[in-house]
Amino acid sequence: MADKTSASQTEGAKSNAKNETKNEATSEAKATREEKLVQDVADLDDYARWYQDVVYKADMADLSPVRGCMVIRPYGYALWENMQRQLDDRIKATGHENLYFPLFIPYSFLMKEAEHVEGFAPEVALVTRAGGEELEDPLVVRPTSETVIGYMYAQWVHSYRDLPLLYNQWANVVRWEKRTRPFLRTSEFLWQEGHTVHRTEQEAEDETLLILNAVYQDFVEKELAIPVIPGRKSESEKFAGALRTYSIEAMMGDGKALQAATSHNLGQNFARSFGIEFQDADGQVKTAWTTSWGASTRLVGALIMAHGDANGLRMPPRVAPTQAIIVPIWRKDEEREAVAKLVSEVEAALRTAGVRVKADWREERPGWKYNEWELRGVPVRIEIGPRDAANGQVMLVPRTDRSAKEAVAARAVAERVPALLEEIQRALYEQALAFRLSRTYQAADYDQFRALFADRSKQGFVEAWWCGDAACEAQVKAETQATIRNLPLDHPEKPADAICVHCGRPASDWAIFARAY
Amino acid sequence: MADKTSASQTEGAKSNAKNETKNEATSEAKATREEKLVQDVADLDDYARWYQDVVYKADMADLSPVRGCMVIRPYGYALWENMQRQLDDRIKATGHENLYFPLFIPYSFLMKEAEHVEGFAPEVALVTRAGGEELEDPLVVRPTSETVIGYMYAQWVHSYRDLPLLYNQWANVVRWEKRTRPFLRTSEFLWQEGHTVHRTEQEAEDETLLILNAVYQDFVEKELAIPVIPGRKSESEKFAGALRTYSIEAMMGDGKALQAATSHNLGQNFARSFGIEFQDADGQVKTAWTTSWGASTRLVGALIMAHGDANGLRMPPRVAPTQAIIVPIWRKDEEREAVAKLVSEVEAALRTAGVRVKADWREERPGWKYNEWELRGVPVRIEIGPRDAANGQVMLVPRTDRSAKEAVAARAVAERVPALLEEIQRALYEQALAFRLSRTYQAADYDQFRALFADRSKQGFVEAWWCGDAACEAQVKAETQATIRNLPLDHPEKPADAICVHCGRPASDWAIFARAY
Repeated sequence: MADKTSASQTEGAKSNAKNETKNEATSEAKATREEKLVQDVADLDDYARWYQDVVYKADMADLSPVRGCMVIRPYGYALWENMQRQLDDRIKATGHENLYFPLFIPYSFLMKEAEHVEGFAPEVALVTRAGGEELEDPLVVRPTSETVIGYMYAQWVHSYRDLPLLYNQWANVVRWEKRTRPFLRTSEFLWQEGHTVHRTEQEAEDETLLILNAVYQDFVEKELAIPVIPGRKSESEKFAGALRTYSIEAMMGDGKALQAATSHNLGQNFARSFGIEFQDADGQVKTAWTTSWGASTRLVGALIMAHGDANGLRMPPRVAPTQAIIVPIWRKDEEREAVAKLVSEVEAALRTAGVRVKADWREERPGWKYNEWELRGVPVRIEIGPRDAANGQVMLVPRTDRSAKEAVAARAVAERVPALLEEIQRALYEQALAFRLSRTYQAADYDQFRALFADRSKQGFVEAWWCGDAACEAQVKAETQATIRNLPLDHPEKPADAICVHCGRPASDWAIFARAY
Repeated sequence: MADKTSASQTEGAKSNAKNETKNEATSEAKATREEKLVQDVADLDDYARWYQDVVYKADMADLSPVRGCMVIRPYGYALWENMQRQLDDRIKATGHENLYFPLFIPYSFLMKEAEHVEGFAPEVALVTRAGGEELEDPLVVRPTSETVIGYMYAQWVHSYRDLPLLYNQWANVVRWEKRTRPFLRTSEFLWQEGHTVHRTEQEAEDETLLILNAVYQDFVEKELAIPVIPGRKSESEKFAGALRTYSIEAMMGDGKALQAATSHNLGQNFARSFGIEFQDADGQVKTAWTTSWGASTRLVGALIMAHGDANGLRMPPRVAPTQAIIVPIWRKDEEREAVAKLVSEVEAALRTAGVRVKADWREERPGWKYNEWELRGVPVRIEIGPRDAANGQVMLVPRTDRSAKEAVAARAVAERVPALLEEIQRALYEQALAFRLSRTYQAADYDQFRALFADRSKQGFVEAWWCGDAACEAQVKAETQATIRNLPLDHPEKPADAICVHCGRPASDWAIFARAY
């Protein structure tokens, strides 16, 4: 493991040098974002390699000595904390409270919901010894908590007056994955899992969609600046034990899809298995309806891949650990003094204005620092040199467009920087949306469909009618590696003669097909 | 388990009724807090029973189906979240960053530090199967993370320029305990664990004490309103693998001690075991110095026991999930309307003033609601009836002193309630401190010492000189169940003829002896 890390660091150093050369080239002939990404994919063997480089070089995460588990480093964790706070605010604003259930689940609990155990048993980690003794009933390290929560809810719910129960927990979960990649798929990951109980099917469905739209879509689009498509999962892609699963799907920089969050209407499946019953207003004892929904550190991976470019990360300002980095420029000591005075004024003014700002006083040349902070995706760079100090001005350089460098009077910084951050937030969203639209295709027939997935450099989302048959879906996957991401809630009206893009039988749903993370 | 819970709920209901009778009695002959607690201990078999009742009846936690693990319910978790935020602010204000290490630690890592493995191996939970296969090297569910963190730090630290590393993580940990009690001792608990690396022994010692004082003591005294005694642990009570352990010790309502947080100077023990080395400015490769420090959900238990009284919890306002509860009083519909108008005005005014306020509109009689919110320890009750509505005033009742009920003009509420919350915060601290002082004794000889621990209703802290010998400490424990809590940093000057309270040999340290949680 130690070897691997240093290998990756060496690679990192190499490709840093590469980046510098590339930067110069890029600044002359400014490529559009899309071109840059394609260029990037072409330049560096593959996109996966670019992703890993960014994760390790920008100090987002590191390999750990435990197979499939990562260490989230301070820069990555600060991003996660900002994301958590924003998501948590939305969860609470929609009436949910946080609580905490045990890490361990008796293995026998997992067996109570037939589909659930089938879905999760193969990838669980089992505690068989504890406190020096063999356990009679082994404990599962939670892969998700529906079962233990179902058991508790059965004890808490007695009357319709107890409903709805609207709870959420922030926790770590473990799923023993064969192939792992930092943030995207790790054996342990951090997430929130919401678990609610309702009186009627309609209430449960409303909750499932409220979370999908008002919490997840709103959060991912507004804070992470990633446009998503909300929709229903096909039967074969739904959560093990759910009645219906909904997801929001985002497009990454290589045209592949990433499921950014899911919301499940569990129907009465778990309520029946665990006996969550209540006496209704009419005196009848009824089985409750439950939901569950989750979003995880995977979103960090989504953010990296949705916005990153050849120079590294691009952090959406609203969640960026550092929103503005001040790079002081000086040669002689007397210059340093004048620069330092303006730097500390600007820093204080920005901090007062609520901007997360830092000044980089390390003894390195400015160009090295520019690369470093571009790699880390800090939205705004503020350059302050001796001439700026003399003129009482600073240079602002947005990460999204280096050519849009602007001189701003020092006294106007506290007003201009927050506005610029908003512009960058918007620009990132618009660029990601434009990219997705440019990579979203419609296929009239299956030949066209296959052709669209044949050229990897243009891969994206393919929208098409589908018959609703899982066998058909499986064949498409076998032939193109594309899966149905979801059946968008917002879709064209179905013509009477709509047919499945694959088998030609009458269509049931409008679907988005894509290769996915 | 289901049976146990309902049993405890029945007991809860019973003692609720008991409380009501008791309330009336108390309001006539107002007992001091100390008397009430003693009365309480006398009334309800024992203090442990009172504690458990409060935890379950106030919905702080519930039993879980996993032995030794609890469910933290929303009311308890909201308190923990407030505590976390305050503690996290202090951790960051002293220059630390958060990050996240894996839940699992290779068993072989635990073996690398001899004392550490001895301390923790007996109580670890082991994952032996994962993903359907037996693991070659079983994984320990982290009981604390020094070992896996030491492994990573060895890769991150190269030069003295990399130091200090000042990191912290919020996480769950597992220690398989034989006897567990909610919050106080559970097999899984939530905590923060800080882990830092330094260039010199002095820097490590400074860090250890900075955390003890500026972070832990300041947090527990200011936010939780619990006075604590900072001091060094004796050799036999220190952390497995540490050079020196420091703690802050608090007195609970029954006179027993509770270790509220610990801060360890690990010396070079872990740095040596894991190879944390750096090239110093002089070109020499040196072994680093490390520290670790933690505070956990145990603090919730401390808060309950330091402040609770015969009527239930008393939440310190700064961390109370709800700081003010409005209880509307009405009989007829037209009364309800006038009351509702004032209630919503007061609620809005308080919310604007930053007060965490709720109105209780449930269809229950006011007296029932008073008991309920007293049990939950809400600092201020606001009663609003028809006459109040007519006069444009409200009644404020502090949880700390029901007889101090005051009428306040509705328009003055936004000013008076925050001030009252500050008064209550102060009163809780002062009461806890007065109680501790009244239960802190000095023993001139061992007969006196034993006598002080003989009467359980008066048990407390005994300060005395001690020889420094672990055998002597062990004998005292065997004979009185009292252990050395710590050797206070603030202590009297040692007279030349100071002798150990137990053996009479020359004394080395001033120690606090107490029975402890």
